[in-house]
Amino acid sequence: MKNILLLGAGRSAPVLITYLRNQARQQGWQLSVGDAMADHLQHLALPGILRVLPITVADENGMQQEIMAADLVISLLPAALHPVIARWCLQYKKHLITASYASPEIKALDGAAREAGLLFMMEAGLDPGLDHMSAMAAIQKIKRAGGVLTAFKSYTGGLVAPESDTNPWHYKFSWNPRNVVLAGQGTARYLEQGQVKFIPYHQLFKRVEPLQVLSLGVFEGYANRDSLPYRDAYGLSGIPTLLRGTLRRQGFCQAWHQLVALGLTADDYVLENSEQLTYRQFLESFLPATPCPQTWEQRVADYLGLAADSAELDRIKWLAFPPEAILLPQATPAQVLEKLLTRKWQLAPDDKDLVVMQHILEYQSGGKHHRLTASLVVRGEDARDTAMAKTVGLPVGIIAKRMLQGQIAQRGVVIPTHADIYEPVLAELEHFGIRFVEEEEVIS
Amino acid sequence: MKNILLLGAGRSAPVLITYLRNQARQQGWQLSVGDAMADHLQHLALPGILRVLPITVADENGMQQEIMAADLVISLLPAALHPVIARWCLQYKKHLITASYASPEIKALDGAAREAGLLFMMEAGLDPGLDHMSAMAAIQKIKRAGGVLTAFKSYTGGLVAPESDTNPWHYKFSWNPRNVVLAGQGTARYLEQGQVKFIPYHQLFKRVEPLQVLSLGVFEGYANRDSLPYRDAYGLSGIPTLLRGTLRRQGFCQAWHQLVALGLTADDYVLENSEQLTYRQFLESFLPATPCPQTWEQRVADYLGLAADSAELDRIKWLAFPPEAILLPQATPAQVLEKLLTRKWQLAPDDKDLVVMQHILEYQSGGKHHRLTASLVVRGEDARDTAMAKTVGLPVGIIAKRMLQGQIAQRGVVIPTHADIYEPVLAELEHFGIRFVEEEEVIS
Repeated sequence: MKNILLLGAGRSAPVLITYLRNQARQQGWQLSVGDAMADHLQHLALPGILRVLPITVADENGMQQEIMAADLVISLLPAALHPVIARWCLQYKKHLITASYASPEIKALDGAAREAGLLFMMEAGLDPGLDHMSAMAAIQKIKRAGGVLTAFKSYTGGLVAPESDTNPWHYKFSWNPRNVVLAGQGTARYLEQGQVKFIPYHQLFKRVEPLQVLSLGVFEGYANRDSLPYRDAYGLSGIPTLLRGTLRRQGFCQAWHQLVALGLTADDYVLENSEQLTYRQFLESFLPATPCPQTWEQRVADYLGLAADSAELDRIKWLAFPPEAILLPQATPAQVLEKLLTRKWQLAPDDKDLVVMQHILEYQSGGKHHRLTASLVVRGEDARDTAMAKTVGLPVGIIAKRMLQGQIAQRGVVIPTHADIYEPVLAELEHFGIRFVEEEEVIS
Repeated sequence: MKNILLLGAGRSAPVLITYLRNQARQQGWQLSVGDAMADHLQHLALPGILRVLPITVADENGMQQEIMAADLVISLLPAALHPVIARWCLQYKKHLITASYASPEIKALDGAAREAGLLFMMEAGLDPGLDHMSAMAAIQKIKRAGGVLTAFKSYTGGLVAPESDTNPWHYKFSWNPRNVVLAGQGTARYLEQGQVKFIPYHQLFKRVEPLQVLSLGVFEGYANRDSLPYRDAYGLSGIPTLLRGTLRRQGFCQAWHQLVALGLTADDYVLENSEQLTYRQFLESFLPATPCPQTWEQRVADYLGLAADSAELDRIKWLAFPPEAILLPQATPAQVLEKLLTRKWQLAPDDKDLVVMQHILEYQSGGKHHRLTASLVVRGEDARDTAMAKTVGLPVGIIAKRMLQGQIAQRGVVIPTHADIYEPVLAELEHFGIRFVEEEEVIS
């Protein structure tokens, strides 16, 4: 009897739990779902099949007992906890699957994991995860047909479906709000026409590329932190243009740029008096004083050089920055903004979210220059079974199933860029309606 | 026989050395000048009066010997070295004077220094130093006359004199170029009309205030990192408006803002291929690629939204970013920019630099609202005896003299905000032509 231990049952977990519960029932496996707040999961318990386990990483003994009893550990815990989980997996010789980036600390365990005959599969969710798998499938298809890649660009976004889109930002949170608020901090690095290019954070949201996605209309993409490692990871050495980015509805970035320009996303200092401030006062502390009284909207517009009827100002007005107490002591500006946005951009229970991914590959073949666009659109069911939970959870679940079935040969710290890993995952995802649409054109 | 040990004989030291050498001769003291590169100082040696000493902090034994033999240590070494120098001063019971900020590490030695009967006088140069002394003199003058301060703003700049101003930035380096390149990074914090205000780095050089300084024309000021501690330091608790800033010639900041916007001042990552780059390629890596060939000047203008005849673009063109190898391995963007600017903004041997300081104090008195503006302008003699070296060195020298004469009673870690310290210094500075000009007006 195989035991799966799933750690972390937050926003991205519901679809994975359903998938693994079905698999466990069919295959005669057992699933333990461990989470700090396990009460809301008790209704999922199924004697002999699914056990709900209130546990935190702080309970080191309990955690080690559970890992010892498992055949496979899946972690959807925050990425920062993965090094300790991975070391326990090494100690008790257990395979590990996560949807988080393979950090340098995790990569350092590669040799030891190989030696112990273990698979540490990282980046097995949506982004990172499905992005790698579908990118590699498209790249390999072109390479097998003799094409020479000249450009690879890839964008992913967790958004809101048009039918649930009720705000001028055209955005709601389907995953960790903090990551959205801090997105892009630092300097973005990518390849363009053979040159390494840098975009500082305060320019990032002005440097967007418009993207048409199937019949959904125009989106926009901004560059992720560092695209250069994907030359090696995707087997694209020598490619002149390479960029991985994030996708938003048109107009989002230009308005978000204004919040960055104000300084509201700073996370490197604390507002000493944040507990005494209202959201309005918080905003005021980033605006110069004016000699004559003016509305806050006028002052924002004047300071940022925005027209009174601009789309950016509309979006900022909608945030309202109400004169209500923030009630967060010693908060950074980013934490205050996150608290406000969490309220404004919350998915209502029946809202459907939307995951959109697009790869754009340009290549030379038969003396012509081609473009292959591969697009994915996934709708959520509601605020619980989100598109985000599907596209993070199902790849993880399918890889877990195949691992327990002995169908994955790789060992060590691995990301799913191997054809024998991603091909069956992509095939099974199609049964769940997760399918890329390809468009081909000759561009010159 | 009193012994003075001066550590560090860089750009700010020449005038201090001359002053102390004269004092030593008059008072029968001895002066030892220790520097890593002491050769260029040998011509100053004067048997029995001034000894030149090749020494670095790495030579711990030699350094401790010298400190042991001194009655007073003056350090113009980089601020990062002051904690170790201060601990040796504590160990060997020696007074210490520096022109650097009193860091938390230095402040932590206050109790021990007091107990040992030692003066650790920090911030005794220009900025910090003379700024505190002259600000306190002006504040005390208003308070003594019964005025109630409503605003205090203070700006200092190390610039180039009009007769030596040969470039469109109206700027040359009279002190550490690295500090100029990194100036303002982080978030500036100040008080305006009773509110704490924040300015993120990427807005800082757009938020300038025009300042008329005597007959020298218009300058502009931008906010320093954190003005709030000066409420306590200057005895200004409850003041609604408080800002300390840096002063530049008009137009400098708007053009510097463009370099910041490009990302050229970033110091938090390394250009891995910097050794293979030219300055032109360095600039290119911050510009998006364009489909058609264009001059680099056009591309900068398009990207930043600058008119072809704008003053910002003129200044950027003058920097030229030549297609020459940078020859700096593993450099940050800021280090590359510093190398280019060091060449472009170098003082020629006969150039005169200019130190400008202005305090603007607003206060209520006799039912009216007044403004007192106190301005200082100091010209350098040449590229060696700069205004910077005068205004850093002379306050340090005068305080050193008075300390050795037993005229300074304070002990512990002290900055020169006490009337019995700054009044004699300001008085003696007038003999050297360093004198504030006051302008008074009733504003309402």
